[in-house]
Amino acid sequence: MQSLGVTLGGRSYPIHIGVGLLDEARLYAPLAGTGKVAVVTNATIAPLYLERVTRALEQAGMARPVTILIEDGEQAKRWACLDRVFDALLAARCGRDSAIVALGGGVVGDLAGFAAAVYQRGIPFLQVPTTLLAQVDSSVGGKTAINHTRGKNMIGAFHQPLAVIADVGTLDTLPDRELRAGIAEVIKHGFVLDLEFVGWLEANTARLLARDRVALEHAVRRSCELKAQVVAADERESGLRAILNFGHTFGHAIEAGVGYGEWLHGEAVATGMVMAAELSVRAGTLRREEADRLKALIARAGLPVEGPALPVDRYLELMQMDKKAAGGRVRFVLLEGLGRAVLRGELETRLVCESIAAAAR
Amino acid sequence: MQSLGVTLGGRSYPIHIGVGLLDEARLYAPLAGTGKVAVVTNATIAPLYLERVTRALEQAGMARPVTILIEDGEQAKRWACLDRVFDALLAARCGRDSAIVALGGGVVGDLAGFAAAVYQRGIPFLQVPTTLLAQVDSSVGGKTAINHTRGKNMIGAFHQPLAVIADVGTLDTLPDRELRAGIAEVIKHGFVLDLEFVGWLEANTARLLARDRVALEHAVRRSCELKAQVVAADERESGLRAILNFGHTFGHAIEAGVGYGEWLHGEAVATGMVMAAELSVRAGTLRREEADRLKALIARAGLPVEGPALPVDRYLELMQMDKKAAGGRVRFVLLEGLGRAVLRGELETRLVCESIAAAAR
Repeated sequence: MQSLGVTLGGRSYPIHIGVGLLDEARLYAPLAGTGKVAVVTNATIAPLYLERVTRALEQAGMARPVTILIEDGEQAKRWACLDRVFDALLAARCGRDSAIVALGGGVVGDLAGFAAAVYQRGIPFLQVPTTLLAQVDSSVGGKTAINHTRGKNMIGAFHQPLAVIADVGTLDTLPDRELRAGIAEVIKHGFVLDLEFVGWLEANTARLLARDRVALEHAVRRSCELKAQVVAADERESGLRAILNFGHTFGHAIEAGVGYGEWLHGEAVATGMVMAAELSVRAGTLRREEADRLKALIARAGLPVEGPALPVDRYLELMQMDKKAAGGRVRFVLLEGLGRAVLRGELETRLVCESIAAAAR
Repeated sequence: MQSLGVTLGGRSYPIHIGVGLLDEARLYAPLAGTGKVAVVTNATIAPLYLERVTRALEQAGMARPVTILIEDGEQAKRWACLDRVFDALLAARCGRDSAIVALGGGVVGDLAGFAAAVYQRGIPFLQVPTTLLAQVDSSVGGKTAINHTRGKNMIGAFHQPLAVIADVGTLDTLPDRELRAGIAEVIKHGFVLDLEFVGWLEANTARLLARDRVALEHAVRRSCELKAQVVAADERESGLRAILNFGHTFGHAIEAGVGYGEWLHGEAVATGMVMAAELSVRAGTLRREEADRLKALIARAGLPVEGPALPVDRYLELMQMDKKAAGGRVRFVLLEGLGRAVLRGELETRLVCESIAAAAR
């Protein structure tokens, strides 16, 4: 097991990464002293891991937790589901001294984390991510949210967990496609912050795809470490933290353009990174051979490097909507070489169009 | 005009109290640099004060704000209304850099403040309270919330405003009954924290009821000052801040027992304080003549000193429900003399029953 810390003053917390951690009672110790514990999970995850978490909580000295099942998939991130969590918490007499354990992927973490952020004005929670995407991205950094009909993640809070327990053993049950989607965010952390990690990924992609646990543990640890540094410097995304959105402006347009759920988030981000690299080349901050190297790594991980067949105008429109929903101007994250991302304001539309065309089918 | 500060590190903010402050453009300066501004208010308040606030915002250099009207009354504090606020913010393209102005009483402040706490993971807001209750209590301290069908204020956040602009001139339009209900919380601050202020209130109740602006300004300032000290010491109510709930355990039972809206919150708290004083006498922490003095001041303010005709068992049941909804044990706030409140754990049920009976009709 490896442990690292997210340094946020009074809200600092540890991230534990390893195999079999679900069963380690001592890792649940931050919950000691709280009242009732509610485990929020879904019907896919519960049969696989709920009993192990429950047993570990009991071994850690806690009463048997309340279990709250939510719907599976992105559509669970809506008010009606959140309200059912509140209803279950209140029905179980969970007070201000209770706590939540989020057991599952990004949807469970986002929804359960937001429930914890606002239930009785905020109760503690612990993240137990069971997908690669959640282990390297959504469970670290305290972003929680639900969707609004007018936009994704529009209603939410920054609410840091007490701890993150990332058991890479749970990745055994992850579908291949979801594993690859998670690798997209791992790769992103390399491109944005760490050239050496890019090199490691190039050498070890096959091991990751074969679910080699040593390789997975290293990839998760390094990703969390990189993200934790950024979050510690800019918890509420007033500046720096936005570099973690590398590939996301294009990626969100892809997700929205093909209909949410058609492409996985990580897949759309993968292709979005290819487009953002093309844009970096055109803006003069990245060399062509670096962009090619980026694309090759994404392809090696079995991720799409070509966007869906949408007209370029449709991309622009979707990016504009994303921008308008977010209020500000479109800000692109560009690469100044591999391993070094920067924020850039408005760029010439022509360059953006060319970059999309260069990576579209 | 008088100004005082709430000291909360990076979340510190000023409270301005005086006559005609709605029109003072410079007081809206904390909003400078934000993007769009949305004023959340209701159909009762808008015709009275919206144009003045809008003009002041424009004079302060901001674009004409978006106006969002919510329902009047406690029933507005529900998800459907909150979602309409989000919908209006998104329709108006309000981004993460936008801000909210809450113009109205406690309901507007609670709902608009919570909207600000979670819209795009949190945007700033400014409180412009127009009722005495909101000026002395709900707009200070950052508590925001909506209700759940299973309990009041169950879903919310601590979200401190950028500033509070308390224009006592707006109290001219407040119905008498609401003025008195606000005075209940003013008096509470005296009983809990400041014997000298109790003396001032005894001498000046008639002036407050006659809406003497000098007296109102002093009462609001001293109340805010006392509350701000407590909030600065215990922002998230982990201990000390709970003393501000003096009279509220009994008061909540009264509100729920007669049906919400029948008694105003301040009226229920007034009678609740009489019951809590009776309990303090029985617990040996308050002298009989002090309890009589407390009751006399409440009566002088035209507030009820006798509870509704409910069986004592019904009170206990309601207090138990309040406790269960809140999860913990019933904790009473008692007085150790006037101007000094303390938290106490479980007390003998017999004493609680006697205290209710002593103040019930």
